[in-house]
Amino acid sequence: MKQQNSEQLMKGIHAYIESLSYSRDPQGLYDPIEYVLDLGGKRLRPVLMLLAYNLYKENVEAIYPQAAGIETYHNFTLLHDDLMDKAEVRRGKPTVHKRWDENTAILSGDTMLILSYRFMMQGCPVERQEEVMGIFGQTALEVCEGQQWDMEFERRDDVTVDEYIEMIRLKTSVLLAAALKIGAVLGGASAEDADRLYDFGIRMGLAFQLQDDYLDVYGDPATFGKKIGGDILCNKKTYMLITALQRAEGADRDTLLHWIQADDFEPAEKIAAVTAVYDKVGIAALCRQKIEDYYAEGLRLLDEVCVEEPLKEPLRAFVDRLMERKL
Amino acid sequence: MKQQNSEQLMKGIHAYIESLSYSRDPQGLYDPIEYVLDLGGKRLRPVLMLLAYNLYKENVEAIYPQAAGIETYHNFTLLHDDLMDKAEVRRGKPTVHKRWDENTAILSGDTMLILSYRFMMQGCPVERQEEVMGIFGQTALEVCEGQQWDMEFERRDDVTVDEYIEMIRLKTSVLLAAALKIGAVLGGASAEDADRLYDFGIRMGLAFQLQDDYLDVYGDPATFGKKIGGDILCNKKTYMLITALQRAEGADRDTLLHWIQADDFEPAEKIAAVTAVYDKVGIAALCRQKIEDYYAEGLRLLDEVCVEEPLKEPLRAFVDRLMERKL
Repeated sequence: MKQQNSEQLMKGIHAYIESLSYSRDPQGLYDPIEYVLDLGGKRLRPVLMLLAYNLYKENVEAIYPQAAGIETYHNFTLLHDDLMDKAEVRRGKPTVHKRWDENTAILSGDTMLILSYRFMMQGCPVERQEEVMGIFGQTALEVCEGQQWDMEFERRDDVTVDEYIEMIRLKTSVLLAAALKIGAVLGGASAEDADRLYDFGIRMGLAFQLQDDYLDVYGDPATFGKKIGGDILCNKKTYMLITALQRAEGADRDTLLHWIQADDFEPAEKIAAVTAVYDKVGIAALCRQKIEDYYAEGLRLLDEVCVEEPLKEPLRAFVDRLMERKL
Repeated sequence: MKQQNSEQLMKGIHAYIESLSYSRDPQGLYDPIEYVLDLGGKRLRPVLMLLAYNLYKENVEAIYPQAAGIETYHNFTLLHDDLMDKAEVRRGKPTVHKRWDENTAILSGDTMLILSYRFMMQGCPVERQEEVMGIFGQTALEVCEGQQWDMEFERRDDVTVDEYIEMIRLKTSVLLAAALKIGAVLGGASAEDADRLYDFGIRMGLAFQLQDDYLDVYGDPATFGKKIGGDILCNKKTYMLITALQRAEGADRDTLLHWIQADDFEPAEKIAAVTAVYDKVGIAALCRQKIEDYYAEGLRLLDEVCVEEPLKEPLRAFVDRLMERKL
């Protein structure tokens, strides 16, 4: 079977998304949508969908609309999340509510969500519509639930590791998993394979997000892309902070609590002090181990997918590179 | 064929919507959705859908999910529109962004939009899914476009009557029309009948909205439900204001322009002055005529629908009562 590697797939779907034209009236509604979709990004979700489809079928172009749909949905969540988080920059450019205004961000986001459903239906074989729309709709709901938990956790001090993992599963993993599953379903995979690929996506999503949290503390400022220590500064209840609070004792625990409650501080000083406690209680190794565990579980699930081993290489190489690039 | 009148249909769908339970976590996300859907309202769009279906089939319960879907969509637009308009009260209760906060209004609204798609798919016969989702998706987009035009018109002084009519067609009419068309399609109507019912809905929607604008100036404060003169106070470019600006001459025109540009004024004085110009140039009669024209066009389209005349009575009685109740 003719397969494409992830870079070829990425080029194809990227060109497809760039070719989409929203130059219809009212421009005030569609310009921000084009702006957001043209900011680029890794097109991770569409590429995963195409890689999963390509395990079973060659003509990946057949599902470009669904791949564009999941990317449009993802970008809708970024647009509304940035508004809710009052973020000013996304991929090096002003966010929509800064470049335009808040109402534009609300309404253009709503429109993107509607467009993502339209893409998802476009050219979807009649006999697969119910399943594809069911996966997509359930996932879209779960991502909103994840965002809600994330916002609620900001105001809570008793978030557990399990709750945190469930939050990132909803906010991040389910969309990666759904991309893989929809690709598999459209490719004609068995129900068992589709579920394995979904579960593979869940584990990889958890590993990616934990790695992102890890790099926010221990990453190389030159390659991480964001400023180091952002999560520490805003007391984000990550796996690392929750675990450190569980494990730190005596003066270390007091230090953590002091910095969490501090209102007025020198950012660099807070980052250094919290990181020092992380180091003392061995958070880095614990977090790396957890990432490894999820990653290994994911790979075992991929092993069980019933297609010939060589066909899995592009997908395996893609997730390998995603992890290695940063750790 | 066993038919139900609009009141029976309203009771059925109202009970169905009330019975829907969103008591799943996170409550912070689903409580506002339940709050909004339980505020009630006339359930106009689901009743229109059931009336159209009931022209062809008896078992209206079969499409309760689709009827709930269009009501959920409509309430999503109210939730986000109220946020964008900074409205504080809806149906006598605090709006979601006042009762909770802006982020809750954004995210709960997004979730309602996703739920509306899920309802629309639920139990939809496979052979009708593509058409139903196509009508719904196109309509959902158009409603957003209408809201965008509405917001842009606030900042423009050169809005024409045609542009205003197109804006209210998108913002109000297409959803009523889609409710009727989806009901007809699910009932097994011919493509011609489905289109006639759609066009009937467009005309009725325009008539309703123009009537709403008319009553905002000439309504009885005891029955209108909102304060009289709200549109005049905020210079809303309604059919009446645009037409008055076209027809007023000399001192009357100066009066209108003066009040439109006035920053600091006594509300009652502005309302009285603008209404006086409307009276002088005969706006009330012009507006009533336009309402009548759309209404008559709508009824002619209903006449052409190929079902026995007596079957159309519940639908005709419903729109008759909607118009008479207020004019």
